[in-house]
Amino acid sequence: MSKKDPSDSPKLSTESYKGVRDFYPEDQAFFNYLTGTMRNVAQKFGYVEYHASILEPAELYKAKTSDEIVGEQTYTFVDRGGREVTLRPEMTPTVARMVAARRREFGFPLRLFSIPNVFRYERPQRGRLREHWQLNVDLFGSTSHEAEAEVISVAHALMLAFGATTSDFVIKIGSRNFLNALTRELKLSGEASKKLLGLIDRRAKMPNDQFAREIADLGVAAELLESDRVPDDVAEVLALLKERGIENAVFAPEIVRGFDYYSGVVFEVFDNHPMNSRSLFGGGRYDNLTGLFDNEKVPGVGFGMGDVTIKDFLDVRGLLPEYVPPTKVYIAVASPSALSHASSLAQMLRAENVSTALDFGEKKLGDQIKAAAKHKIPYLIVVGDDEAASGSYPVKNLATGEETKRSRDELAQFFLTI
Amino acid sequence: MSKKDPSDSPKLSTESYKGVRDFYPEDQAFFNYLTGTMRNVAQKFGYVEYHASILEPAELYKAKTSDEIVGEQTYTFVDRGGREVTLRPEMTPTVARMVAARRREFGFPLRLFSIPNVFRYERPQRGRLREHWQLNVDLFGSTSHEAEAEVISVAHALMLAFGATTSDFVIKIGSRNFLNALTRELKLSGEASKKLLGLIDRRAKMPNDQFAREIADLGVAAELLESDRVPDDVAEVLALLKERGIENAVFAPEIVRGFDYYSGVVFEVFDNHPMNSRSLFGGGRYDNLTGLFDNEKVPGVGFGMGDVTIKDFLDVRGLLPEYVPPTKVYIAVASPSALSHASSLAQMLRAENVSTALDFGEKKLGDQIKAAAKHKIPYLIVVGDDEAASGSYPVKNLATGEETKRSRDELAQFFLTI
Repeated sequence: MSKKDPSDSPKLSTESYKGVRDFYPEDQAFFNYLTGTMRNVAQKFGYVEYHASILEPAELYKAKTSDEIVGEQTYTFVDRGGREVTLRPEMTPTVARMVAARRREFGFPLRLFSIPNVFRYERPQRGRLREHWQLNVDLFGSTSHEAEAEVISVAHALMLAFGATTSDFVIKIGSRNFLNALTRELKLSGEASKKLLGLIDRRAKMPNDQFAREIADLGVAAELLESDRVPDDVAEVLALLKERGIENAVFAPEIVRGFDYYSGVVFEVFDNHPMNSRSLFGGGRYDNLTGLFDNEKVPGVGFGMGDVTIKDFLDVRGLLPEYVPPTKVYIAVASPSALSHASSLAQMLRAENVSTALDFGEKKLGDQIKAAAKHKIPYLIVVGDDEAASGSYPVKNLATGEETKRSRDELAQFFLTI
Repeated sequence: MSKKDPSDSPKLSTESYKGVRDFYPEDQAFFNYLTGTMRNVAQKFGYVEYHASILEPAELYKAKTSDEIVGEQTYTFVDRGGREVTLRPEMTPTVARMVAARRREFGFPLRLFSIPNVFRYERPQRGRLREHWQLNVDLFGSTSHEAEAEVISVAHALMLAFGATTSDFVIKIGSRNFLNALTRELKLSGEASKKLLGLIDRRAKMPNDQFAREIADLGVAAELLESDRVPDDVAEVLALLKERGIENAVFAPEIVRGFDYYSGVVFEVFDNHPMNSRSLFGGGRYDNLTGLFDNEKVPGVGFGMGDVTIKDFLDVRGLLPEYVPPTKVYIAVASPSALSHASSLAQMLRAENVSTALDFGEKKLGDQIKAAAKHKIPYLIVVGDDEAASGSYPVKNLATGEETKRSRDELAQFFLTI
């Protein structure tokens, strides 16, 4: 299988670039389960898939993405032609750009989803990588609270599709309208308003006294933020969710979301786990984003759900699916003279849509069978001269050790019905 | 749906970064057809999917990828931590890195496939973009010509799965062994050998007299390259392909492939179209690539198939599939009072796995129906107060205009069986 390299040349590292992942077959199988479930749920609600390059002109993010992300966390470089390019840190500016470009051709409401990878230059840590994939679900062209309720319903349906129960998570809903009314009432400057929202956004992550001190510096009394009254927009969304049978949603005045473009209802889905209560993902309404490209704005509402956070959630809850390879059967060869027969058997099975891997018999039989087990392939057929002559094959279940003889004609049917 | 932006702020362009593509729903549907077919064929042959980040340490490409690509065509930049990073221009060095990293855990032969995007800084032109997607199929751990025959069989099966016939394309097979024997015989230096291979590789793209002059400069007589004798390795692969029923394969001494890492049999699939005879994709054996990481080399053989070239091929042949959105039915609302009923109908259909889009009734009915048509959704249900009261719904086929009444209980069954 391998031979010694006589050269003493220095070797390259087999590690990936820092903070990104290699997806080996078992990782990729989980990724395909994750994205397959996302695709299935989004499509059921009438959303259609789009995609775009990871490369975007750098100016796309300068107007409306948060200062922290643009200034400290983007991968931005100058290409060989002198253009400033950014590896997208999020998908919303891209979808807004694409919708603005075809505003006249599209029908509205327009439902779109995508599962792009996004990039941030961060210190890698649990749940935070430099590259992750993120389902983006967006509904364009509706100012109705129905749109917000629907998008939150998609988020809710996703959680259930992954096997979570409604007691595993809670949907916290806030309102930028409520916060904007507050900052207007307090006559805060644009800068101070932004600072206040940032403080509220990070409130859970700082000591109470620090939060009190910092908002006092802005001239805001803490009591003003403790609203018992549910804002009208949030109340309507909660009522629509109830109509759809969704009860695990609450008003939460502290939900702000980090991006500058949010303009109305915002929400976050929280893990209810007692040891690990935290935001899993979220989104909200952004009615002004396509205004970056066009004087005719198209209202939008959507959310982004990251693969790393959801994987951690499923892992803690015991909801990760078991790995099953796509290959159904491994054909090993007992003697070189049987290889040609084994190859034609593999070809027949593939023609019948049975995923079949063939060993070329370059190692002894025991090692061929070990290879099948390493691949986690469920069934094994050993083909020797006797099998080639008789046309009857021993089919071994590698998990149970059970073995049954099957004729060539029975084989495909057997594998397609198990 | 949209409102005027009073600001006169300068607007951003809606165009994507130069040389990359936006995938609108119809483009993405084709992309999903393409990658779904690739996945299906590769898995049938026992190949399992892997993936990796587009970001790789720049040194990964310096040893074995061609000088032209590394020196002039990579996207390489220095990250905020001072690391030199490259957006992968091809996948083979990545898969070799991943295989070397788990050489002891993997079973061999190991069959892997991936559909990554790859990047090259090129002047955009037909069939050549700065980002494209590429199926990579690789078989590791076998030195047998069976491995080469199998990988070429996968390429062949892919072409048929896309609807091509065996007269639409030809598989041209060359041999680096044959070329290496020639350069040894001619006592060419390493530099001159590389130059000769480059000339042979580009032969079809230059005038005959220029080719003759340039190889004469290397001290090589043109007659030496006109071999009538099929090299042993190519002859064996051709025989194995014939056993598998593949007849449209020929020896072609001019097939070299551009990458430095190829070490044995190489091949290219050519379009047979009289107006557009050209290479569609190709690959070959590379037995030394994992030696970059490890003294124990793992032999490899594989190919890469690009999405842009295949799309052009299918387009010319009339083999592009028609766009059908995943959404089966559009529910429009005739009056605001019917919205709540329409929403619960949509919810019922989704629970029965029927992809359903709901209009919130923000525009008049005629415009709602126009939106359904723009989305190319095949069926329409208009819900008004009468339908809400009777529980009987008019189901309209938007292509034929045909309309039938269905009860709530019949609806899901109707959509799942059409």
